[in-house]
Amino acid sequence: MTQLAETPEPPYYAVIFASIKIEEDQGYAETSARMIELAKKQPGFIGMDSARVDVGVTVSYWQDLASIKQWKQNAEHQVAQAFGREQWYSRYKIRIAKVELEYGN
Amino acid sequence: MTQLAETPEPPYYAVIFASIKIEEDQGYAETSARMIELAKKQPGFIGMDSARVDVGVTVSYWQDLASIKQWKQNAEHQVAQAFGREQWYSRYKIRIAKVELEYGN
Repeated sequence: MTQLAETPEPPYYAVIFASIKIEEDQGYAETSARMIELAKKQPGFIGMDSARVDVGVTVSYWQDLASIKQWKQNAEHQVAQAFGREQWYSRYKIRIAKVELEYGN
Repeated sequence: MTQLAETPEPPYYAVIFASIKIEEDQGYAETSARMIELAKKQPGFIGMDSARVDVGVTVSYWQDLASIKQWKQNAEHQVAQAFGREQWYSRYKIRIAKVELEYGN
């Protein structure tokens, strides 16, 4: 079932990853799935909301900046980052943001 | 052409809107398009990245909290918000976050 991320009371952090993929994205789906699986095991990981049509928008939620830094430096993730930069994305933008307020249902 | 939002040097603000839509979303597409058109005319609006499959993730970027508040209170937008809450979204979550760092290509 499709669900939205469950997050605690702010403050916590969001990594906003927006990207445009090229057509021949060999290995992308497998690596993408693997990175999600791996991120979920990282300390400080809270949750994630993600969608892709042409533009992909993935927002992951983290306890603090240290958790984000640790995930960025994960060895397997670094290999995936290099593939992303060099092969899969024609453009991408990453924004680190401190969530101050949250509401919804 | 599909493009990503162009944003200035941080700090600025992001509104992260994650939602799940119900099946019968009468009037949704028109109102959604109209709200995007209207948001672009608001003071402080910077840009937006958006995608929807099952989950929709829309991140809009704003100069400051005052701009976000003003947009939230826009009369036409308030009608759309009510439709969203009462008719279109089975779940939604809005997070207001201060962008501290940005990188990409």
